[in-house]
Parts: sequence; structure tokens; C-alpha cells
Amino acid sequence: MHLETYLAAQRRRVERGLETLLPPARTRLREAMRYSLLAGGKRLRPILVLAAGEVVRAPFRAVLPFACALEMIHTYSLVHDDLPAMDDDAVRRGRPTSHTVYGEGLAILVGDGLLTEAFRVMAEARGVAPARARAAILAVARAAGELGMVGGQALDLAAQGGAATLARVRAIHRRKTGALITASVRTGAIVGGARPALLRRLTAYGEHLGLAFQIVDDILDSTDVPVFDGRTDRVLAKATYPAVLGPAGARVHAARARDAALRAIAPLGPAAEPLRAIAVHVVARAGPAPVAAAAS
Amino acid sequence: MHLETYLAAQRRRVERGLETLLPPARTRLREAMRYSLLAGGKRLRPILVLAAGEVVRAPFRAVLPFACALEMIHTYSLVHDDLPAMDDDAVRRGRPTSHTVYGEGLAILVGDGLLTEAFRVMAEARGVAPARARAAILAVARAAGELGMVGGQALDLAAQGGAATLARVRAIHRRKTGALITASVRTGAIVGGARPALLRRLTAYGEHLGLAFQIVDDILDSTDVPVFDGRTDRVLAKATYPAVLGPAGARVHAARARDAALRAIAPLGPAAEPLRAIAVHVVARAGPAPVAAAAS
Repeated sequence: MHLETYLAAQRRRVERGLETLLPPARTRLREAMRYSLLAGGKRLRPILVLAAGEVVRAPFRAVLPFACALEMIHTYSLVHDDLPAMDDDAVRRGRPTSHTVYGEGLAILVGDGLLTEAFRVMAEARGVAPARARAAILAVARAAGELGMVGGQALDLAAQGGAATLARVRAIHRRKTGALITASVRTGAIVGGARPALLRRLTAYGEHLGLAFQIVDDILDSTDVPVFDGRTDRVLAKATYPAVLGPAGARVHAARARDAALRAIAPLGPAAEPLRAIAVHVVARAGPAPVAAAAS
Repeated sequence: MHLETYLAAQRRRVERGLETLLPPARTRLREAMRYSLLAGGKRLRPILVLAAGEVVRAPFRAVLPFACALEMIHTYSLVHDDLPAMDDDAVRRGRPTSHTVYGEGLAILVGDGLLTEAFRVMAEARGVAPARARAAILAVARAAGELGMVGGQALDLAAQGGAATLARVRAIHRRKTGALITASVRTGAIVGGARPALLRRLTAYGEHLGLAFQIVDDILDSTDVPVFDGRTDRVLAKATYPAVLGPAGARVHAARARDAALRAIAPLGPAAEPLRAIAVHVVARAGPAPVAAAAS
């Protein structure tokens, strides 16, 4: 398969889905929600929902709303993380952040609105048996909530300035990023009615992929050329993988996580090809791993 | 029935439910979530869920998680509304607000966490058929989201300083407060499997009750003695019913809304007695209505 073509096609389907679920309206709140939601981005999470749905041959129309919901939750988390009381970022994906454009009050409401609408969209999805819809909603809520993403962000907030250890970095990122990536894979599988054994495989894939993704993200962040807002300085002061493993060690860990993700879904046949290509692609973004990784 | 005894008993059941759903844990996030969630309060919304459930003879254990979820959503909205970027309140129910105690960053996460956990709790509830659980989740998400509570708060934010008209005040409060109160009544009914005609009656009751509640809340706020934080000044500058109707006119409107709520559920028999008593009680808080109200 040609991954770039696949990703571009899926991205277009996600964009159309988001556009349909949150069309233009005359309120400033809607405008602000669309500003952040339709600002581009890799759309990794919704594409994982769709790709996992393909493994279990779930109907595309049933899975798409869940894919869009995952992207809405991811976007809400970025809007809130960027707030002055959190990471205080003025720029995201090359554009001014929500609170910079719309003010802090409305940016908080943008996040609250996207999070709530994500659950509305999942509960409203057609062509999904209620038991599956409820199970998917539960998986997403657990991953996004206090023991998942929100809890990870709270740990990250508390860790700032403290000594970063590998255990600590892992604990933060397993929740902050890993939980929602794993939930994306699980959601597509649950909506498609995956049996427990298959769901376990896909869950393991999601967990390893989430780890690989976060390590690579940290590597890319840490090698950014410092820009006017001093982002690189701040990133280095936070709990990151390159900070505790060094750049070469981080690459080795990312390659190992990728290989573990591939092993988890090795028996699944051609329908899992997109998931495999995505795992390879995610780690390739970091550049070639040192020789030690190939030998590990 | 003796309403005070009923309310106290239901409040205790809600407190126990919340305590079970969010027990003490060693994280600062959990501590902060419990600080706001277990700070007392009338527990009007969860009691409405339970009382509506009684009308359709829903099992208490099936309805309780939904009742607790509504209170979690209400609490999250208070925590976010109190933030400096929103209403900037330092005191709530006689205690320092979340951000005053835990900082703005964690207070934002407290709200995000309570909102997400509310959906987790609803999706996890036992003894509820999946189709009913999904329908209840949908009703709550719609009421809490962009076209409901979050949208109302955005309108309120935008209205500050502008001229308040009755139409504008109604539009804001129907979403900001009314939607979630109506959803509370609907949720209890949906979990208990109410037929469409009954659900329509209970929805009408909830809409009128929500209006009555908000008018009375505005009346009580506007007659507060000004305190150190200048709350009364700020309240009067915002869109409230007494500001556009005068205190006497607001009382008349509250009494009319109460009567409309009572009419909507008049045919429902003794199982609806708690809902009737609650409607009477909510308006009685504002003190006696002028004579004109009795004649209307």
C-alpha cells in the first residue's frame, strides 16, 4: 500500500466529517470552535479509528463520527493546554492560539464545547448498536478523563521544574498522549464489534504506538531551532524522553516501541496493513535510528 | 409529603453516590475535584433526576449514576465560570473557589476532569439497557454543549456591558441554566423508559422549572448585601431578570413559570408529588409574590 495516498484520503474524509458535524454558524463560539478544529494537523487519532475499523470491517459511516469525536477531544486538549495558566503558548501549527485570538474566557468555552460535543457526536452516531456505542463512549471517557489524559496533564503541570526520570516521563505520557491514541484504536475496533482477543491485540498495538509517537514528538520538539517565543528552552525544562535518555537513546526506544506494536498485530493479515504502515511512518519522522536499534 | 425530609434523604443518597464514584485518592487532581464536588449545595439537578425516575418507577440504582453525573457537570460549570477569565469569583458557597486554592491550571483540569468523568459514569452505569443509556447520554451532551450550557455561558460572556432586554436574558438563561435542569428531569425519565407523551410532559415541566429557578436565583442575587468583592455591583451589570423586569415583575414571572410547570405534570398522579413540591419550593425561596401574580 502507498501510505501517503492512504493518509491523504483518510484525512479528507475526516475533514469532511468534521465540517458536517460542526458547520459554520453565526455565533462567535462556533467560529472559535471551528478555528481550532479545522486548523489542519495530522489527524492521527481519527485515522487510527478508521484504520482499526477496517480491521474488523466496520461500516465506514458508523465509524466516522467516532473518528471525528476523537479529533474533537484531541483539539479541546490542545486549546486548554495552550492557555496562559497551562503551557502558555501563543502559536500552534503556525497560527495564533485560540485564547490569543478570542480571549481566555472564550478559549476555555471552546475546549468545554468541543469535549461535550464529542460525546454528543458519539451518542448520536447512526448504524451502531447501542451496546457498542456505549462501550466506545466508555473507552473514550476513561482514556480522556482523570485516570487518562486529564490526569496526565495534571501530572505534567506538577512535574514542571522537578527532576525528570524515565519512570516519571513514562507515567506522564502514558496518560497524557498514550491513553487517547490507544483509545482511538480501541474505539474503531469496538464500534466494529471486535472480539476480546482481537481487541487485546489492537489495544497492545495502540499502547506501543502511543509510546513511539510521544518519544518521536519529544525528539522533534527538542531539535527544533529556538524561535522567538523561546519554546525550545521550555521544552527542555519539561519531562521529555530525550531529556532522560539522550537523543540516541530516545531513538532506540522509539524503534523498539514500533517493533512491539508491529508484533502485536502481526497475525492480523492484510486488513491491518494501514496500522502497520502508520507505526513505521510515525517513527520514521524522527530520522534514522542509531545502529544499536537495528541490533536490539 | 414532607418536602424537607424528602430533599434531605435524596441529598444524602446523592452525597453517598458521589463519594463512591470519586473516593479519596492520593493525587492533587482528585483532591481538587472532590473539594469542589463535595462542597455541599442544594443538589437540585441530581434530585430532579431521581424524582423524575420515580415517576416512571425506574430502579434507584440505575438512576443514581446519572443523577451524580448531572451534579458533576453542574460542578464543572461552576469551577470554570469562577475562573479569572470568566466571572472571576474568589468565593463560592462560603469557601474559596477552586482556582484560588489550587491555581488556575489545576482548576481548568478539575472542570475538564469532572465533565469527562460524568460521561464515564453514565456509560458505566449498570442495570440500564444500552439504548436507554445512550439516549440519556445524548440528552445530557446536547444540554451541556454548544447549543446548551456552554453556548449560554458564551452568550453571557459576550453580553457583559451590553443592554439587557428580556429576550436576551431569556435566551442566555434558557441555555445556561435551563437546559441542564430540563436535561436532569429528562434523564431520569429516559433511564426509566418513559414513553414519548410522558417525556414531553416532563420536558415541559423541566423547561418551566428551569425558568422559575433562574428568575428566583437572580432575585436572591440582586438583593444580596454587597460584600468585599463587590459581587452585587457586578451582578447588576449583567443580564438578570430583576434588571429587566424589576423585582416585583420578576416575582410575577417566577410564579407564572411555576404554575406552568405544575400544569404540565398535573395528570401524573401521586408519583409526581416530589416534582410538584420542588416547583413550589423553588419559587417560595424568593419570598411571597405580589398580589398581581396570584390574579394572573
